[in-house]
Amino acid sequence: MKYCSQCGESVEIGIPPGDNRERHICPACGTIHYHNPRIIAGCLPVYGDRVLLCKRAIEPRLGYWTLPAGFMENGESTEDAARRETLEEACTEVEIQSLYTLTSILHVNQVQMIYLAEMPEPSFAPSEESLEVELFREEDIPWDQLAFETIRKVLSLYFEDRKKQHFPLRHVEIDSNGFNTARVHD
Amino acid sequence: MKYCSQCGESVEIGIPPGDNRERHICPACGTIHYHNPRIIAGCLPVYGDRVLLCKRAIEPRLGYWTLPAGFMENGESTEDAARRETLEEACTEVEIQSLYTLTSILHVNQVQMIYLAEMPEPSFAPSEESLEVELFREEDIPWDQLAFETIRKVLSLYFEDRKKQHFPLRHVEIDSNGFNTARVHD
Repeated sequence: MKYCSQCGESVEIGIPPGDNRERHICPACGTIHYHNPRIIAGCLPVYGDRVLLCKRAIEPRLGYWTLPAGFMENGESTEDAARRETLEEACTEVEIQSLYTLTSILHVNQVQMIYLAEMPEPSFAPSEESLEVELFREEDIPWDQLAFETIRKVLSLYFEDRKKQHFPLRHVEIDSNGFNTARVHD
Repeated sequence: MKYCSQCGESVEIGIPPGDNRERHICPACGTIHYHNPRIIAGCLPVYGDRVLLCKRAIEPRLGYWTLPAGFMENGESTEDAARRETLEEACTEVEIQSLYTLTSILHVNQVQMIYLAEMPEPSFAPSEESLEVELFREEDIPWDQLAFETIRKVLSLYFEDRKKQHFPLRHVEIDSNGFNTARVHD
């Protein structure tokens, strides 16, 4: 941020009164501009013993496989966002089961929420955002062609938890050095 | 938003190519400005049969009671944000137990995450953000002096769930007309 989005003047960096962090502050109109983490919502769609992955049609990581997920929009719930992204990227309507992973991605200021979701039908298709969409058994997951480390983590946790048929909410934390933790509270 | 935060020109509203929603777009430098929900993270601190509430020292709802919670900052995890807010507002260090409520507040574009947390000691104090901090038994909760409907919902759910000693993650959805749902997936 270089300019104030309210009045167009150049912003300065400083710590506002009563605060303890540096913010972008407008010296002209006084607006303090806060920057906060954004939410990525998505699903891990399951059909029988297979999970649905999408091959990305857009950068970053074009051509690599991922779970359907994207930025939550204003005016929707986290579950609606997860369902919408799954519909947009994989052309499939899922039934959400539970929140499965909550990943704080510290170095890019994102919080990724992945819901376990059932596919009532094995019906899906490529889209503007996905070159291919496909159901994979565990042994067929393209581990070396996954788009993001966070997605690799979600899939690893899932196949591990599937052995026990118990899918507790997992808190994951990652920074630019890799994973810090994958906690489960229950 | 009126001006581009990258170049200072006046922004326009339009639907970018490949998108289906109106965004703020800069006609000068081409930047598309996305606006996404912000995360409020906090705790429901418990000591024995009592829960900790804070009387707000700042607007909005100055003088009303709430749970310690606030905007998640860049560079921290959701749990760190919840612990930090609890320390800042109630001067108490808690041990997080589990994510308890995930509330999508549609009309203000916020996602509120409240963690159940244990207080190892009944040690707490007012702060710059709280006029008073106090432990309340269920029968003493100041229901008519709570700051926010979302907080009332969290407390109601908690005292209900406490009877069964089972605290599943609850998805809550609220808009300007009130609560739509309080779902539990497990």
